[in-house]
Amino acid sequence: MRAVVMRNGALELATAPIPRPGPGEVLVKTLATGICGSDLHCVAHGDRLLASARAVTGVDIYDPKEPVILGHEFCAQVVEHGPGTRVAHPVGMRVVSVPFLLRPQPVTIGFGGFDTPGGFAEYMVLSEDLLIPVPDNVPNDIATLAEPLAVALHAVNRGKLGPDDVPLVIGCGPIGLTVIAILKMRGIGPIVAADFSPSRRAMATRLGADLVVDPRETSPYDSWRSVAAAPDPARHGRQTPMFPQFAYRPSAIFECVGVPGIIQQVLAGAPPCAKIVVAGLCMEHDSFQPAFGIFKEVDMSFCIAYTVEEFAQAFAHIAAGEVHIGALITGHVGLEGVPDAFARLADPERDAKVIIVP
Amino acid sequence: MRAVVMRNGALELATAPIPRPGPGEVLVKTLATGICGSDLHCVAHGDRLLASARAVTGVDIYDPKEPVILGHEFCAQVVEHGPGTRVAHPVGMRVVSVPFLLRPQPVTIGFGGFDTPGGFAEYMVLSEDLLIPVPDNVPNDIATLAEPLAVALHAVNRGKLGPDDVPLVIGCGPIGLTVIAILKMRGIGPIVAADFSPSRRAMATRLGADLVVDPRETSPYDSWRSVAAAPDPARHGRQTPMFPQFAYRPSAIFECVGVPGIIQQVLAGAPPCAKIVVAGLCMEHDSFQPAFGIFKEVDMSFCIAYTVEEFAQAFAHIAAGEVHIGALITGHVGLEGVPDAFARLADPERDAKVIIVP
Repeated sequence: MRAVVMRNGALELATAPIPRPGPGEVLVKTLATGICGSDLHCVAHGDRLLASARAVTGVDIYDPKEPVILGHEFCAQVVEHGPGTRVAHPVGMRVVSVPFLLRPQPVTIGFGGFDTPGGFAEYMVLSEDLLIPVPDNVPNDIATLAEPLAVALHAVNRGKLGPDDVPLVIGCGPIGLTVIAILKMRGIGPIVAADFSPSRRAMATRLGADLVVDPRETSPYDSWRSVAAAPDPARHGRQTPMFPQFAYRPSAIFECVGVPGIIQQVLAGAPPCAKIVVAGLCMEHDSFQPAFGIFKEVDMSFCIAYTVEEFAQAFAHIAAGEVHIGALITGHVGLEGVPDAFARLADPERDAKVIIVP
Repeated sequence: MRAVVMRNGALELATAPIPRPGPGEVLVKTLATGICGSDLHCVAHGDRLLASARAVTGVDIYDPKEPVILGHEFCAQVVEHGPGTRVAHPVGMRVVSVPFLLRPQPVTIGFGGFDTPGGFAEYMVLSEDLLIPVPDNVPNDIATLAEPLAVALHAVNRGKLGPDDVPLVIGCGPIGLTVIAILKMRGIGPIVAADFSPSRRAMATRLGADLVVDPRETSPYDSWRSVAAAPDPARHGRQTPMFPQFAYRPSAIFECVGVPGIIQQVLAGAPPCAKIVVAGLCMEHDSFQPAFGIFKEVDMSFCIAYTVEEFAQAFAHIAAGEVHIGALITGHVGLEGVPDAFARLADPERDAKVIIVP
């Protein structure tokens, strides 16, 4: 089969063996695959990503010396049932799945090699028990968005928003934009958002943000203050008013940038008792002043992924037409166009989400 | 009256006017006052504390050019009722209070000047509506511990511990020790604790810690792993098992040290999905690697104070004999002994909590 293979940090179109489904697995034909920011990380500075993950987990996410077939946001079609399957999904059925194989030694799809390729290839193997059928009304490319939407759904869930929280989204890349879509779907607002890029700001507005600012011109935190609920000292509730000037205003801030310095910027701008969700993926050393977190008594929730249930919910919202994130997709390429798409995605003005159609 | 006055970062025994109670306030005679870590901060490096708080809040906690009378952990006795009081507490009644005056422009007691002195003086003024009577069974010095115990109660509440969480307390100064006492009172355990000081470790054991280690010899995180619930991947629940080696083990870590580097150390040692409560008061720049928070999906809750209700609960626990923290008190001094006590408190081997008896 044809596949885009990552080797030594470079992508090349190559020929790979069609993988064989193991017990409880099905062979599927890849219909569409989204390119994720972490795919860009792997190619642009995989060493840093690996070192960072290794420092935390003690193991490598993938083997940098071996060929890797990326792609963990996919929609596929059942081709063949492996041994020990229930044949619950007929050949030809379109499906999505969390990028994961239920093996004794679990495998994350999208960071494996030829045996367990990701969606940057014509075929993949998936665990039957994790498959979710895609109804006819959902196009292939839209179905792939279940995965990034699950990341956003999880981030919003991690924020444990109360009914009065006014959200602020810092950074309108794919994570920030899908966070906006989830907040909008849940009727939480007004939604304030910030990004340096004019096209990302326009997209934030299309996805449901109510007030979108260029941080070069307007402080996102001042903008938040201009629309947030009036301060109500009586509802502070968390600490003795050591700092009475810190009137409580319910807030949730989503950090969707992931570069050094942004966490301190959020801590400095946040109102007291802010719930800060760190959804940006910063792989470098960072510095901050704990005093800002301490005096403001913030809660900071870091996130990377989602539960199996959240993935299913995200897809159900898409299938039911409850969330509209098609505007995220700014282009489609074949496998041969993948290396060029990676170059284009470096420019936030040109693309947000590019879908591969193998 | 006699008072210990802080001026230009130095303490001196001086004569100050007896303060006059305003509307709704009572004049009280100070019976006992604890010396808090933040008092030490004010004297040893007040400039840094002020700069840090000013950066966060925009105002000064106290005026460094004016005399300040410290002391926000106190037990006192009603002497005289000011105008507009309900006379709800008779003259001679012993009381405690959150260190706060309910004025139109609120005042924090313990960081004010001659008009609103803290407990490092023979007399104070307090708001009648915040007074809590001290029953006969509670000695003066024990009553002062309501305030540090409220800090610990708040920190434990901020950790939102579940029934299976095994706690780890990093640092056994007064905050760590009172956190241990609250955890013990609530039946949460086994409690693992760590401190470099032998006397602090002995005190941690007396207050209820089950496993206490010297971090020079034994990793607190390895010790925690040796007693925590067995890993149960099925109960992970928060994220797709991108890192299957990260088996979930319910945990809450209390950072009660407050020096640069400690937050990264906790992030590095913490199990996945750890709830980290930052109760240490670090006033300096710090550095960390967000990747540790991100891949582990930790929750980090910063804290500084407590609610009025938590203060009342902390005192009620003391009065009911539900918590035993008298062992914290390692000495008593008169007002004339305060400067010397500050010097002694720099050595963790000598003292934990010193009580002033004016």
